[in-house]
Amino acid sequence: MLAEYHAKRYELIQEDRALRRELKGSALRTDVELKADEVIRRIRAEEAESIWKEEYTSIPHPFPGMEFLTGKSIIMKTKLFKILNKMPKGALLHAHLDATVNAHFLLELALQQPALHVRVQATVTASNFLTNLPEFRALPQEQFSDAAALTDEAYPPGSWISLAKARATFNHSLGGPEGFDKWVTGSMTINPAEAYGTHNTVTKIWQKFTSCFIVSTGLIRFEPIFANYIKEFLLTSIEDGISYIEARINFLHKYMIGADGQENIPHREWLIMFDRVQKEVKDQLKKQGKENDFIGARIIYSTIRFITPEELEWYLEDCIALKKEFPHLIAGFDLVGDENVLKPLIHYIKPLLSFQERQKEEGVDIPFIFHAGETLGDGTEADMNLYDAILLGTKRIGHGYSLIKHPRLLDTCREKGIAIEVCPISNEILRLTSSMPMHPLPVLLNNGVPVALCSDDPAVFGNMGLTFDFFQVLVASEVTGLSTLGALARDSIEFSTLDAADKKHALEAWGNQWAKFLEYVVKVGDGL
Amino acid sequence: MLAEYHAKRYELIQEDRALRRELKGSALRTDVELKADEVIRRIRAEEAESIWKEEYTSIPHPFPGMEFLTGKSIIMKTKLFKILNKMPKGALLHAHLDATVNAHFLLELALQQPALHVRVQATVTASNFLTNLPEFRALPQEQFSDAAALTDEAYPPGSWISLAKARATFNHSLGGPEGFDKWVTGSMTINPAEAYGTHNTVTKIWQKFTSCFIVSTGLIRFEPIFANYIKEFLLTSIEDGISYIEARINFLHKYMIGADGQENIPHREWLIMFDRVQKEVKDQLKKQGKENDFIGARIIYSTIRFITPEELEWYLEDCIALKKEFPHLIAGFDLVGDENVLKPLIHYIKPLLSFQERQKEEGVDIPFIFHAGETLGDGTEADMNLYDAILLGTKRIGHGYSLIKHPRLLDTCREKGIAIEVCPISNEILRLTSSMPMHPLPVLLNNGVPVALCSDDPAVFGNMGLTFDFFQVLVASEVTGLSTLGALARDSIEFSTLDAADKKHALEAWGNQWAKFLEYVVKVGDGL
Repeated sequence: MLAEYHAKRYELIQEDRALRRELKGSALRTDVELKADEVIRRIRAEEAESIWKEEYTSIPHPFPGMEFLTGKSIIMKTKLFKILNKMPKGALLHAHLDATVNAHFLLELALQQPALHVRVQATVTASNFLTNLPEFRALPQEQFSDAAALTDEAYPPGSWISLAKARATFNHSLGGPEGFDKWVTGSMTINPAEAYGTHNTVTKIWQKFTSCFIVSTGLIRFEPIFANYIKEFLLTSIEDGISYIEARINFLHKYMIGADGQENIPHREWLIMFDRVQKEVKDQLKKQGKENDFIGARIIYSTIRFITPEELEWYLEDCIALKKEFPHLIAGFDLVGDENVLKPLIHYIKPLLSFQERQKEEGVDIPFIFHAGETLGDGTEADMNLYDAILLGTKRIGHGYSLIKHPRLLDTCREKGIAIEVCPISNEILRLTSSMPMHPLPVLLNNGVPVALCSDDPAVFGNMGLTFDFFQVLVASEVTGLSTLGALARDSIEFSTLDAADKKHALEAWGNQWAKFLEYVVKVGDGL
Repeated sequence: MLAEYHAKRYELIQEDRALRRELKGSALRTDVELKADEVIRRIRAEEAESIWKEEYTSIPHPFPGMEFLTGKSIIMKTKLFKILNKMPKGALLHAHLDATVNAHFLLELALQQPALHVRVQATVTASNFLTNLPEFRALPQEQFSDAAALTDEAYPPGSWISLAKARATFNHSLGGPEGFDKWVTGSMTINPAEAYGTHNTVTKIWQKFTSCFIVSTGLIRFEPIFANYIKEFLLTSIEDGISYIEARINFLHKYMIGADGQENIPHREWLIMFDRVQKEVKDQLKKQGKENDFIGARIIYSTIRFITPEELEWYLEDCIALKKEFPHLIAGFDLVGDENVLKPLIHYIKPLLSFQERQKEEGVDIPFIFHAGETLGDGTEADMNLYDAILLGTKRIGHGYSLIKHPRLLDTCREKGIAIEVCPISNEILRLTSSMPMHPLPVLLNNGVPVALCSDDPAVFGNMGLTFDFFQVLVASEVTGLSTLGALARDSIEFSTLDAADKKHALEAWGNQWAKFLEYVVKVGDGL
């Protein structure tokens, strides 16, 4: 009776998990992979008992998969993190360019530019340090300005000061130049007190989140910085094991500011810079014999969900024109911003349907890759975006956090191969979930829906690269193992917009890296 | 093109929601119901903008479906709450008897019993007020004791003091007698600072939760209180519109303490009291012409998941013996306690399988009604309990919080009619979800899995009756409307263990109440 029960039980568990994608394709279940998987599970179990049960003075109740901003220092102590750091991650399919480079690095880039100025609407004081946001802008040389310190009572509100001067004169009581750095980087990042205290709801944290972009855009959309910024993004991504990128670039503003301080650099110049930088990076890698570490980067043309449908028509035409000039660079089109408060896709249905007609006329193919369902709402406009994204033929879905509520749509995504760009740490910091064990990712995996893990806005969240996101996923589930992570990485390439030949090449390159990584993990296991 | 798109969109939404149970059975979609549903949706939308967007001094960011313990005072201000209060709720299928009566009422009952004594292991002081837990026990008359005050430095640790004396002598600096009441009721309830601050993880809050039961059991498992306690539970439930109850009673201790202070009242006497009380309540209702308001109450025999498999055999035999003597009272069998730390079902598989054989021999039918999947774990023992519960033929599933991760099991529950006892407020306070919008209930509803809403441990959580749980569900979803709540209430009867005749009667009685309720809602709508 017992044996029969156990047999039935085994069978039921297998059936329940039969759709999981790490079980597809025999290549994935080599002996080495099974062995490496065991090593990872053993270390995870050990560290759950050791590292995660230690006492930490400033962390009252640590646990695997806990709030990222609070637990980050513990994560970085683990063997698991060090191992995952070396894992080949495949593609990064969901990242907003303006939040991809460490805020300190961006500030360093900025401080090298004499044209960059800063202003505030009131003197910076101890009491408004966290809420008084800097506004940045490059000025033409004749407007360079060195008025009073930002922290001076006599500072004339709204007057521009050169960045270097503002830093040098930042009041000592606020930390002096280092205080300035803290103030600037704090305005472009979310800290734990904000995410888990003062801004602990989806609505509140989005306000802080949005302000980070408003601040950083002033630095990034400046020609001498833009290219360097992209280069740093590519190099640090490659360093983390990412071999291909589809970055969402926000084209809301029609021009960026040029080296001369004038707002005169059109979108096509942005793409030329993007292209030049990735060629430089590729050349650099080739010299080091690492050309297979990086397949390339493309752009998902994005604008924001607060424009009018008429304005959207302009952006769609702009996107088509760019696609025609740079067919290898434009990967798709998206509308971004807080779905809970901005316009739903159905609001733009007319131009979006016309866009598909216009593409046929122009002989181009620009898939929609929509954000949809990044919400806790059930039947709200943000949740309903999922229906429209799918009906409009979206190639993938950005976030799709509420997708698990929709049985019919889950089936569609599995059957049609619509991958979900899941951003675990982003979802947690933006308060859709309180910790990783609460995240709905296992529902997607068990339903056989293809998933690519993504970092979304690593500069704001501090989850640079993809290691942190893979880590959080791995420690929050006993079903998930190394094979699951491998399948997620492989699927990130599989569901990219790469053409057949490039995809084949990318998959082969990843497969070789993966095989090497498995050997490394087994060796680590032998050393334990 | 647009019209065609909208038609496809409508169709897709319908398909996606086709399994929802409020859409089954045409009787539910009368004109009155549609009208009442509109009224409810209108009020919900109005109050989301008014009441939930007001500023409250001690509530930093209110929102519909927010943390219950913080938002309770706002909930009680709403029109929606007042309306739902009058709704016929159907059956309460998941409540632990020992946590069903307001702690203040229980204390009042206790203070009338001279035999009841209290002790602590150290003098109660301001600094240990929240953690120094009282232990209660009725003593035989010859052991009655009136030693020093609990708050006296000279109090001999562990010495019993009569309840009345302990209250009267509670030090004024700790609030005197009212301070005593606060201390005692605080030890049997969870407050917001605990749930959302000091104990803000599943592991930590379960420690506080368990201690509430240890404290209250000392008062409830005393013959002169037990019957009065049950009576209060039934009367307040009926007052809230609950017409039938299946209560989980914990039979871990083989005897309760009798009026004489001796531990000598066996389980069969507990059932005799339970039976007598419900007859009294029914007689009382009959006199008021309200006999249809209450169909009755039954017992789910429960013991705790820390016993050995050998000990379980004793309880299973005990359960069979009680079922034979009181066939109308025993509704099922369950094992309770924190699934994350106690033994999984598979640990007890041998006695549980034998139990089914033994029932055949004895000619009784005692369905399993297992707690399973009350966890954030994925593939952990607590999550795996779902496989065993279902393979063992569980009639319903208590909580089933992690069920949404299991596509095959969701199908089984829908197809075999295994209802899920969903306890929204319990799940939130026990930190499985941070707020109601994060709760996975919509996944169950959209998958057509039958659900009954339950209060679990209302005395500990403060969600007395079912109105609060229905409220939280209603405000957290735009799909859910009055028809959904009606389907949930009806299903609570449909998936009870009532026999065919009683079920028919209960459903008819509920149907009549529901029709009256709809008329009332429409009238409220006309008055707006």
